[in-house]
Amino acid sequence: MKTKPLAICAILGGLALSATAQEQTKNAFAQPVPSKPYLEPSIARPEQEKVAAGKLAALEKRFGRKPNILIVLVDDMGWGDPGCFGGGLLIGAPTPNIDKLATGGLKLLSVYSQPTCTPSRAALMTGRIPTRSGLTRPTLSGEVPKVNPWADEVTAAKLLSGSGYRTALSGKWHLGEGEGSYPHQCGYDEYYGILSVMSDFSQQLDKRLYPDLILRPDRLAALQKLSEAAITKGSKGGPLEVSEEIKSTEDLAQIDQKFADFSEDFIRRTTKENKPFYLCHSFGRLHNDSYPAKGYEGKSPAGFPQRDALVETDDIVARLINVLKETGQLENTLVFFTSDNGGNEDLMPDSSYQPFRGGKGTTWEGGVRVPGIAYWPGMIAPGRVDDGLFDLCDLFNTPLAIAGITDKIPSERFIDGIDQTSYLLADDGKSKRDAVFMYAENTLTAVRWLEYKVHFKVFLNQSAHRNLDESTLNNLGMAPWVYNLYMDPKEQSSQGHSRFEWGLPQAMMRAGRHGATFEKYPRKDIGLRKPGE
Amino acid sequence: MKTKPLAICAILGGLALSATAQEQTKNAFAQPVPSKPYLEPSIARPEQEKVAAGKLAALEKRFGRKPNILIVLVDDMGWGDPGCFGGGLLIGAPTPNIDKLATGGLKLLSVYSQPTCTPSRAALMTGRIPTRSGLTRPTLSGEVPKVNPWADEVTAAKLLSGSGYRTALSGKWHLGEGEGSYPHQCGYDEYYGILSVMSDFSQQLDKRLYPDLILRPDRLAALQKLSEAAITKGSKGGPLEVSEEIKSTEDLAQIDQKFADFSEDFIRRTTKENKPFYLCHSFGRLHNDSYPAKGYEGKSPAGFPQRDALVETDDIVARLINVLKETGQLENTLVFFTSDNGGNEDLMPDSSYQPFRGGKGTTWEGGVRVPGIAYWPGMIAPGRVDDGLFDLCDLFNTPLAIAGITDKIPSERFIDGIDQTSYLLADDGKSKRDAVFMYAENTLTAVRWLEYKVHFKVFLNQSAHRNLDESTLNNLGMAPWVYNLYMDPKEQSSQGHSRFEWGLPQAMMRAGRHGATFEKYPRKDIGLRKPGE
Repeated sequence: MKTKPLAICAILGGLALSATAQEQTKNAFAQPVPSKPYLEPSIARPEQEKVAAGKLAALEKRFGRKPNILIVLVDDMGWGDPGCFGGGLLIGAPTPNIDKLATGGLKLLSVYSQPTCTPSRAALMTGRIPTRSGLTRPTLSGEVPKVNPWADEVTAAKLLSGSGYRTALSGKWHLGEGEGSYPHQCGYDEYYGILSVMSDFSQQLDKRLYPDLILRPDRLAALQKLSEAAITKGSKGGPLEVSEEIKSTEDLAQIDQKFADFSEDFIRRTTKENKPFYLCHSFGRLHNDSYPAKGYEGKSPAGFPQRDALVETDDIVARLINVLKETGQLENTLVFFTSDNGGNEDLMPDSSYQPFRGGKGTTWEGGVRVPGIAYWPGMIAPGRVDDGLFDLCDLFNTPLAIAGITDKIPSERFIDGIDQTSYLLADDGKSKRDAVFMYAENTLTAVRWLEYKVHFKVFLNQSAHRNLDESTLNNLGMAPWVYNLYMDPKEQSSQGHSRFEWGLPQAMMRAGRHGATFEKYPRKDIGLRKPGE
Repeated sequence: MKTKPLAICAILGGLALSATAQEQTKNAFAQPVPSKPYLEPSIARPEQEKVAAGKLAALEKRFGRKPNILIVLVDDMGWGDPGCFGGGLLIGAPTPNIDKLATGGLKLLSVYSQPTCTPSRAALMTGRIPTRSGLTRPTLSGEVPKVNPWADEVTAAKLLSGSGYRTALSGKWHLGEGEGSYPHQCGYDEYYGILSVMSDFSQQLDKRLYPDLILRPDRLAALQKLSEAAITKGSKGGPLEVSEEIKSTEDLAQIDQKFADFSEDFIRRTTKENKPFYLCHSFGRLHNDSYPAKGYEGKSPAGFPQRDALVETDDIVARLINVLKETGQLENTLVFFTSDNGGNEDLMPDSSYQPFRGGKGTTWEGGVRVPGIAYWPGMIAPGRVDDGLFDLCDLFNTPLAIAGITDKIPSERFIDGIDQTSYLLADDGKSKRDAVFMYAENTLTAVRWLEYKVHFKVFLNQSAHRNLDESTLNNLGMAPWVYNLYMDPKEQSSQGHSRFEWGLPQAMMRAGRHGATFEKYPRKDIGLRKPGE
């Protein structure tokens, strides 16, 4: 037994995951059932499936059409930000409206994103782990991959748009800035927002923050060639248009208010048309850099722009909920509130990534475990709190199931998402997910199974180790590193070689199952430049 | 200006705090008003005082007598433990009953304890920072100070007992094991509990945990001479009696259930007598070592004894609330739920001290910022969350004010506590406290003012720096260290010499005001042995 973890570690070094661990291990745990070869297996929960189906049927009878889906995606919001997850007033930024969603719905304690922006959004929209779609890291200013991943990727929006839904992306995209990869070319009937990211614009505008760039005309010109500071828009079949240029940090400060205006209008319009909608409301905030919108300067008790941004985000959540109320759609809409990744450790001092280890860009919990709330009055019992596994990939399958179009899921590619409808809707619903697989670009770095997290490769995180020397940073013990997240949510004390020998074969079996999917369904290489290429 | 912090730092080196900073600084902030020379000055809040007085008068009319006070004090419960403060199910131990107190009352985000057990309890009971009473550190097994601090210290219980209240201590005391220092000799009409601490007994009983002690009869005998493993009891004027011996870890596992039995009985009896009560329900848990009571083994989702202990603690909170309901006293009782200090970093891996830095024994936030809930249906509006400063010393003055006997507060000694009744009772009540002064034994180590924390001396904390070498540990920057707790609750990035030069004189003025109290009211030395003495 003593040598086994080392052997496993060596296998993992080459990422040659196979079914060997599976063959060696007698199965003693509730197992996910493989339904179709191209779908991630899920745990069978027939009782709760019945309850959920009954609720959905009754709702459709009541409203005479399918329910709406509103995904509220905040940028770089870490676990430590909203009050209901331990932030809020503690960090000088009360979030009463987000907190009300949590107490009025299902607070999810184990929602996993990808470690960065682009991969997370790709996973959420396609249901596929980014190494499959090729969107494995954030695209840089103006960067266009050699191969357009959207030539053959399929978003939930696309399938819903083809099935009677009105679909829209409001706000940040960051999934492609080239022709053929605009949101309204990837399944969204309407798009109003920004193609890249807040800081892509602030670095062109804020000379207090970027004097080394902005006070040197040659440097600034080089950047501006790559990326135009503007809110853009488009409609299915139409061109990309500039809606308004962003000429100052004051302009930039207002963008989330504008995204909210668009979303409100979209909800009102689709309700008038009596069409179900799928709206991805994708905040520009809380990404660096922060500029308070009108009326928000110093509005947070903390008074700093990052905190004012959180307060504004919370107010916009209230605006979205209010328009659902006004239009009579509150009880006919699944609202799913979450973030694309953990907090940014480079924003020092900050607290977004606490109480976890690491932040954005890592697969420590602080990078990938994000706040999640499912809110649906009348359909999801208020006050539920659960820590069943939920991957943002599941936000591909779940809306399709709610819309009744799972038969539209393409079958020639692998889908990592799972339909979690019954987990969300049954009062005592449990997650159907067996494991979460965590990646850094194309490398599987960690697996979450039950309350355990097994790391095959680890990131050196900044916050705890800032200013420390290299010898110290390597002081982690023996791979693979295993943490019991109930006892050690901060992942401080690995027990892979003391208390977890019983579980390693189980975790490895799951990693092996996952690895085997690539044999039939190869990864896609879209030619994103890599360091040194 | 640039040299000022260094000068301040030098002054602090010798702890010669004086009024000089005060003289130099023009006062620009709401100032506490000195009422009496022997009382900590407090911020005047006349409007909310009126509201609170009105509420108390109406309640007394309704019940025909003074309200009860129930202080629920958990041992070593850190910020990261209860669900409503960010723990609960996240750490595999849901706490629905404690969470209900928070949503049904006032969740206090800035309650400060002392860094360890004995000093914290002394402060809570006497209203005095421990360097005044001499109870500056936990007493060791069987240790009796040269001078009995209780010869002249006055507890809130004593004053209340002399004014028609029935007073009791249920559970852990840890404020003296010698004649003249038993709870029923210090103001409590009744005592049922343990004089020291859980681990004082477990180390005599658990050979799996302490083989190096228990398997050596000479070592064990030496320990047993110092400390008898027993639940003891006593009544005012009577002797200390052994109630039941603790002969096994199974006996030890049941003690919190027994304390709860006693508290329930005490509440029922005093209600029958129609007497107001002051009950300090002082848990043996969550201190190491943990043994699950009957029915609690593996009851927590995490399954580990520390987590089972948290679940049991939560259930006992429900028992106490239920007996208040049964006896019709729920609306006539202020329930104050808190902890004596932060989580214990030696319990590796654990999470009690997160998301803060440091744990028990330090004046980092993780050591002294503790969960606090004030619950009083009908008197405290549900759903309030506030982060006004609250020191456990304030739990001396506040019960006395609620009982209407602030005139009984002795005037020949300094009292650091503040009457916070109006903060708790007025719907928009604000804290009357201006600053919190933090000590390691007799050394002032830090001051909290507004959202800032100024450290004069810092502790090297274990969790983040475990296994690191000394050069790394000293990598803290220049003293004094200042953290903005809204932006940097984990105290990671000091800004004493960049962004806080404006505030240092303010913080120093408050430290100077505090230091000046020792001139008229000298510290007491009770002769607790110090290292090397």
